Amino acid sequence: MGFSFFTSRAGVRLLDRIARPGVSTAALLFAAASGGGLVVYADSAAESAPEPSQDAPKKKVLVLGTGWAGTSFLKNLDCSRYEVKVISPRNYFAFTPLLPSVTCGTVEARSIVESIRRILEKKNKDVTFCEAECFKIDANKKTVHCCSAVGTNLDGNGDFVLDYDYLVVALGATVSTFNTPGVLEHCCFLKEVEDAQKIRRCVIDCFEKASLPNISDEEKRKILHFVVIGGGPTGVEFAAEMHDFLVEDLVKLYPAIQDFVKITIIQSGEHILNMFDERIAAFAEQKFQRDGIEVCTGFRVIKVSDDLITMKSKSAGKEVSVPYGMAVWSAGIGTRPVIMDFMQQIGQTNRRALATNEWLRVRECEGVYAIGDCATVSQRKIMDDISMVFKMADKDNSGTLTLKEINDVLEDICIRYPQVELYMKSMHMLDIADLIKGAIGDSHKESMVVDTEEFKKALSHVDSQVKNAPATAQVAAQQGQYLAECFNKMEKCKEEPEGPLRMTGGSGRHFFRPFRYKHFGQFAPLGGEQAAAELPGDWVSMGHSTQWLWYSQASELAHEDAGGFRLDSPVHIREGFKPDLVPAAEPDASSSFFCTGISSEE
Amino acid sequence: MGFSFFTSRAGVRLLDRIARPGVSTAALLFAAASGGGLVVYADSAAESAPEPSQDAPKKKVLVLGTGWAGTSFLKNLDCSRYEVKVISPRNYFAFTPLLPSVTCGTVEARSIVESIRRILEKKNKDVTFCEAECFKIDANKKTVHCCSAVGTNLDGNGDFVLDYDYLVVALGATVSTFNTPGVLEHCCFLKEVEDAQKIRRCVIDCFEKASLPNISDEEKRKILHFVVIGGGPTGVEFAAEMHDFLVEDLVKLYPAIQDFVKITIIQSGEHILNMFDERIAAFAEQKFQRDGIEVCTGFRVIKVSDDLITMKSKSAGKEVSVPYGMAVWSAGIGTRPVIMDFMQQIGQTNRRALATNEWLRVRECEGVYAIGDCATVSQRKIMDDISMVFKMADKDNSGTLTLKEINDVLEDICIRYPQVELYMKSMHMLDIADLIKGAIGDSHKESMVVDTEEFKKALSHVDSQVKNAPATAQVAAQQGQYLAECFNKMEKCKEEPEGPLRMTGGSGRHFFRPFRYKHFGQFAPLGGEQAAAELPGDWVSMGHSTQWLWYSQASELAHEDAGGFRLDSPVHIREGFKPDLVPAAEPDASSSFFCTGISSEE
Repeated sequence: MGFSFFTSRAGVRLLDRIARPGVSTAALLFAAASGGGLVVYADSAAESAPEPSQDAPKKKVLVLGTGWAGTSFLKNLDCSRYEVKVISPRNYFAFTPLLPSVTCGTVEARSIVESIRRILEKKNKDVTFCEAECFKIDANKKTVHCCSAVGTNLDGNGDFVLDYDYLVVALGATVSTFNTPGVLEHCCFLKEVEDAQKIRRCVIDCFEKASLPNISDEEKRKILHFVVIGGGPTGVEFAAEMHDFLVEDLVKLYPAIQDFVKITIIQSGEHILNMFDERIAAFAEQKFQRDGIEVCTGFRVIKVSDDLITMKSKSAGKEVSVPYGMAVWSAGIGTRPVIMDFMQQIGQTNRRALATNEWLRVRECEGVYAIGDCATVSQRKIMDDISMVFKMADKDNSGTLTLKEINDVLEDICIRYPQVELYMKSMHMLDIADLIKGAIGDSHKESMVVDTEEFKKALSHVDSQVKNAPATAQVAAQQGQYLAECFNKMEKCKEEPEGPLRMTGGSGRHFFRPFRYKHFGQFAPLGGEQAAAELPGDWVSMGHSTQWLWYSQASELAHEDAGGFRLDSPVHIREGFKPDLVPAAEPDASSSFFCTGISSEE
Repeated sequence: MGFSFFTSRAGVRLLDRIARPGVSTAALLFAAASGGGLVVYADSAAESAPEPSQDAPKKKVLVLGTGWAGTSFLKNLDCSRYEVKVISPRNYFAFTPLLPSVTCGTVEARSIVESIRRILEKKNKDVTFCEAECFKIDANKKTVHCCSAVGTNLDGNGDFVLDYDYLVVALGATVSTFNTPGVLEHCCFLKEVEDAQKIRRCVIDCFEKASLPNISDEEKRKILHFVVIGGGPTGVEFAAEMHDFLVEDLVKLYPAIQDFVKITIIQSGEHILNMFDERIAAFAEQKFQRDGIEVCTGFRVIKVSDDLITMKSKSAGKEVSVPYGMAVWSAGIGTRPVIMDFMQQIGQTNRRALATNEWLRVRECEGVYAIGDCATVSQRKIMDDISMVFKMADKDNSGTLTLKEINDVLEDICIRYPQVELYMKSMHMLDIADLIKGAIGDSHKESMVVDTEEFKKALSHVDSQVKNAPATAQVAAQQGQYLAECFNKMEKCKEEPEGPLRMTGGSGRHFFRPFRYKHFGQFAPLGGEQAAAELPGDWVSMGHSTQWLWYSQASELAHEDAGGFRLDSPVHIREGFKPDLVPAAEPDASSSFFCTGISSEE
């Protein structure tokens, strides 16, 4: 097979993981069908780590938000150790990857939500939930200001203030319209369950409208023109769902108007799905062309009115207006006002999201953690700390480092600065000696002793491998789980720290290992039982069996790896997935697998 | 067993019916469990009859409404014989008896609706459906004026006019607030699917509101006071569903506030469920008392504000105001404005519903039929026609009728005036001779010859048995089916009329038998797996197994008798019914059956 493990330790851990009970059988089945290569990139730390330091009985933990990050945190937290309060304007968690399927009724809205109170009931009756919206975080006073989401009919105005010892900010992101005029008023979105339900009603309304008497053909064409603005995975999946819905259902129910229907995707970039491998973009564009879905790339939408979308060609600069019946805006995410306000308070200006350290604590903000789409981990650059790292490694204070001295602290360096390992992998280096060799002159090659300047030179390009994790459900759920595990073992880790050596101040070790994101791949269902997938290890899969892979991924995500999610009604979800497809486990002729990754062992 | 068939003919028909394929097995199972007495009152005509007279190819049939009546008509109509158009503001049919279960999430809204376009797709692609609201019927010009229900975004205003040859008015009724101030603004209703969904959201909102910080106990008590105004089957069932929801689910999800919850039913009459047998009312009131549901009888609501319900004692006349969190108004139905307007046009003033003849044609209105809650059949009184009936029976023009002469036309009389048969049954008379005997003097007893005055005297009390059918789904569905069957056999029946002899003008026979309602009983689920039922033949059932009987009734209603309804997702409905209850088929100790009916054969 064309895959490999980056480290044998990770390989052992993978086998260990597979042998553990509770791992979803769907994932194992897939592994069998495809040859076992799914979880290749399951590198990085299995145990994990933030850096809270106080020690007192039953601290108050306040969780803001019940999306992927907040819910994953709650599910994994040992609530008996803290006094836990949860604030969210929605008393449910939504399995957002299935939102596009809700728009066309493939999956029922109820099937993709899980009651937060039901989750809390299972854990501990003393956890408090309030259906309210946090509109201000006051990190100085350690309080948050909330407003009831349930409307009035209270004697007061529904506002209240809560205090905390630890605050977990998991408020997510909002839709960004980039201030395009008319978008808020006239477009549908695909962020919340209500959005998906609204789209469903709008689509049916368009068909009913076009079926009325005295409607001209031109009007029918306008009413039945469905436009998706934004060619990312969500927009693409919605377009694909719409196409399937048309072909499988609506042509039977509205036979008189089927010829007037058109679906268009408008994408400002040169290709749709441009965060994927370019072969995936090409595959998706070809499939959409065969299906009659128009893909307008290189156009930026500049205005939306009640019946016209105006867009501008990025190359030619000319403006075009198209009449439409319904438009879905899925062009980007933005920062929530409460996060914006908080960032200003703590001096994090001109940012899209809250910056946290590698332990997910908000920088310069004691007791406040941020996870999910409202946060980004800012990975420390090794070059910023290079002198201290050198000093720490130089045990004998000789002013030079031997290979042994480097190897003694290499694991700690790699945990603290994962870019070192990534860089070595990208350069096909087997060990640190290879890295050093490239930096020092030939003369030193045998003794392998480096001074400060040579050490700096060896590591000078490493920080190019620092990458931000994408704003996805996978990342959010992993962060929630990681943070909960840190909270659970806070007492223990203060006694027996499990993190890397402190290199930038303080002595001893960090309490926890830093957060590391494990990428399980990314999927884009393309309709007609086809999908494209980018897998860990630079694998690409396209075609029929990929859809099946998506089922296993969704199931995997729902059940185990991404924070222990288990929906109450998996049967419903399966139902939405048209269960008759599932038995087609073996890859068929229309599928193709490529291996593009070059692993360090080849 | 304590039941009996009124006529042996009906018995044969019942057996015939049971032997027919397509009869729901649930009904048969029940029949076995209870001893076979379910469909006892299945008397009356199996074939049937309105009175359309024209004869031309592909007449235009326009159907207004897709509730029980309209959908039943559509499902049974042979659409190939007519050019059919359907107008309704909802493109679905809703199984309304399950609305109270939707309010608490026992059954999902999607499970109780059926797409009209899906129904039409199965029948004929040439049937046209328009999602629009009819706001004016013009019987002179044979047109209806409609308005699109889908909103604007059309170039016109969405209005249009359609013409017809036959119009089937099945627009249903609306909620009546009896002009009580504040009801429209502050109460929820239980008429449409959206109403049930709104109640569901409101209930949860109340619980979330009462869970917020800084809410006093008094406020909690107010917010969690759920008031049902109207003690009919819908209100009672909603109260019961709410109670079950509380006891089974909400106490687990909102343990901190469970003690503040209260449910109250306000009923202006002396008892709730006053359209049922009085033992059922007593049983329901006792059960609710045990459950802690307060039943306020003899109080009329006179005002509703945003947090107070004001009611007046009917006996003492004093006013009481109670604080509340959510109120459901299910106190009565009223006439839709479009029906009111139409009644004024055709001179039917001061009525609650359109009056039709026994063939469901609107009186004095050629080609217009009305079925369901917007109509009532006005049964002709035999005393109004008594001279003509006498004349018709008096074949030899002797001025007197012999028993043979009466018996020769008795079947036609009983079909045309069903009150004759009902009266004889109520008086325990075996045949017409008994009726005559009571009216004529002893001197005539042997010859059994009656003159006009004696004939009049014999029948003088018969019209007391004229009853209006209730405004229920059962009646509406049977009317829809009956009318469709008449439309289907219109050609044939013009050649070979199957109705009774014309007695009030014209010669020969009516084309069709008049509509006769078959009462299959009425059910009131009372929560906690209990229910009360009034069955045909004056049976009453209360207790645990009755709930199971309701399943079979709902299933029966859904599948066969009430117009051939078959929901797309019966599994979902069963699921809502908590399927683990179903195996408990045998009546248990807590059930009790009474027989109160005295049939003509005992």
